[in-house]
Amino acid sequence: MIDLSRRNLLAGAATVTAASALGGLSLTTAANAQGAAGQQAPGWYRYKVGDIEVTAVTDGINRFKFPDNFVANVKRDEVNKALTAAFMEADQMAIPYTAVVVRNGGKTTLIDTGTGEQNFTNSKGAAGQLNRNLAAAGIDRKDVSTVIISHFHPDHVNGLLLPDGTLAFANAEILVPDSEYKFWMDDGEMSKATGNQRMEGLFKNNRRVFGNESVKKQVKPYAAGKELVPGITAVATPGHSIGHTSHVISSGGKSVFVQADLANVPFLFVRNPGWHLMFDQIPDQAEATRRKTYDMLAADRTMVQGFHFPFPAVAFIEKTGTGYREVPVPWSPTI
Amino acid sequence: MIDLSRRNLLAGAATVTAASALGGLSLTTAANAQGAAGQQAPGWYRYKVGDIEVTAVTDGINRFKFPDNFVANVKRDEVNKALTAAFMEADQMAIPYTAVVVRNGGKTTLIDTGTGEQNFTNSKGAAGQLNRNLAAAGIDRKDVSTVIISHFHPDHVNGLLLPDGTLAFANAEILVPDSEYKFWMDDGEMSKATGNQRMEGLFKNNRRVFGNESVKKQVKPYAAGKELVPGITAVATPGHSIGHTSHVISSGGKSVFVQADLANVPFLFVRNPGWHLMFDQIPDQAEATRRKTYDMLAADRTMVQGFHFPFPAVAFIEKTGTGYREVPVPWSPTI
Repeated sequence: MIDLSRRNLLAGAATVTAASALGGLSLTTAANAQGAAGQQAPGWYRYKVGDIEVTAVTDGINRFKFPDNFVANVKRDEVNKALTAAFMEADQMAIPYTAVVVRNGGKTTLIDTGTGEQNFTNSKGAAGQLNRNLAAAGIDRKDVSTVIISHFHPDHVNGLLLPDGTLAFANAEILVPDSEYKFWMDDGEMSKATGNQRMEGLFKNNRRVFGNESVKKQVKPYAAGKELVPGITAVATPGHSIGHTSHVISSGGKSVFVQADLANVPFLFVRNPGWHLMFDQIPDQAEATRRKTYDMLAADRTMVQGFHFPFPAVAFIEKTGTGYREVPVPWSPTI
Repeated sequence: MIDLSRRNLLAGAATVTAASALGGLSLTTAANAQGAAGQQAPGWYRYKVGDIEVTAVTDGINRFKFPDNFVANVKRDEVNKALTAAFMEADQMAIPYTAVVVRNGGKTTLIDTGTGEQNFTNSKGAAGQLNRNLAAAGIDRKDVSTVIISHFHPDHVNGLLLPDGTLAFANAEILVPDSEYKFWMDDGEMSKATGNQRMEGLFKNNRRVFGNESVKKQVKPYAAGKELVPGITAVATPGHSIGHTSHVISSGGKSVFVQADLANVPFLFVRNPGWHLMFDQIPDQAEATRRKTYDMLAADRTMVQGFHFPFPAVAFIEKTGTGYREVPVPWSPTI
């Protein structure tokens, strides 16, 4: 006998929504309130790469009035022109975050971890959604056996820890790019950053996360070029950060290139590969890596999963006269 | 006390999934199994147009090897070239269906009804998903107060009836374009269609649906140019069918143009407005309407909700050298 009739479920959802308004934003309530008026659909999307099941899971979106140096080598007017051409609002930036879960042979791997659950409250629900959306997607955090980190920026590493400082993925090994780990843990490098507010902040945050005793026990640095878990290979794509790494998921002759921050929002940085994001650590190298990699992905017609592409963040790369254009993969209502 | 803990919910989902494998595909099981491995995310997406809440709800997708005359005035090779340019498979067509729910001032309006729930079994779950996705979106079919039909093709009208022949939206008035209703109910027009297999089939299907006694009682023909319910105005866009009608949802200075079949799949018919779909009743008129309307929508930068656009089927229209290009609106993880 199944007692979960639709009527009961909806009644349950209503109760839970009311409870949510009263009691705040626990994981349980958020996972159950979906479908209620004023609620957005849960942010996950599933597809297959050969035998491998991939689930794109959004952590949400960060909206802000961008500073003049957001694109470091281009004037604000030109950025606004690109936004207007993309039917977006001038002066406003909207940066989405989408992590990736790979299920293969009984193992569950998460690539990047989002801005952290504490950011859900801080952002009034706009971001920090990853754990909620994982739950909605039927993915138990306890089942995550490996977390792969692309690079050491807060929107990729902060989700490793829950707000109480414990591990978000308690049973997972944490694979980090070796060059990235070495750089951010190096006291000499940190001292060189003195006076550079952004770099100081990054060092501080990375020491907080990777200095955590529980994280330390699980961390394993990896070299690019290696298969990290069956079906997932690391590819060095440096520039955005010193050890920035992308990942290729492959199975049965199919593959998807999980690009991390090879380009930030596509309507600016895929269309204009020469534009330098204010967060690029080595901008010229980032640009060279971007052009070289997109030339390859466009020529090979390889599907791309982009951390900062609009959800579900799956696209092909088309070469244009002046750069590239992302061509979103049509949503499939079945897998 | 709320007893719907995440553990209980997941246990429930597992039970229901197992039951689904045993017992077929009831609404209840489909709504609960979401998130299970092998399951796609529920196909609904919500946004606001001023004060009005719009929910795009997919009925699924129809995939088939297309016949040579799929684009009536263009050779198969040219169609395949366009598919390849759009990173899609040659010789394969994938036509999505996305209906729209509008909630405004306590009223719930559904625009178009999909291929019908019986098609879920017929298509092995690929389409006929509308009622399942409405349930997932928290929309009770009993609460739908108005159904607006754009035109009398099966993927728009068949969802009016459940497989047992009763009304899918028991409490809804059914607003239909007057010229469309008149044409398909006219015995003289039907006799002229003798020998034209497709038109004969359409007459037969429309007589089945609109000859149904329960449907008859609820039907109200409407004229284009009128506000049908608060915030939704009908716009004549004839050609695809004789009385084909689009709808503008407006509130607080914002609007979205619900285009129905002004163009079928955008990667063919938005990019190439001169291409004639095999299902166009009056192809030259359909093309003229398409060009005129897209010129307007591109100039006004009006958001479009397209029945056959990839889910969530919201895009802007950009004018190009040879036609238009649809620019998908980025998914927002919040409303």
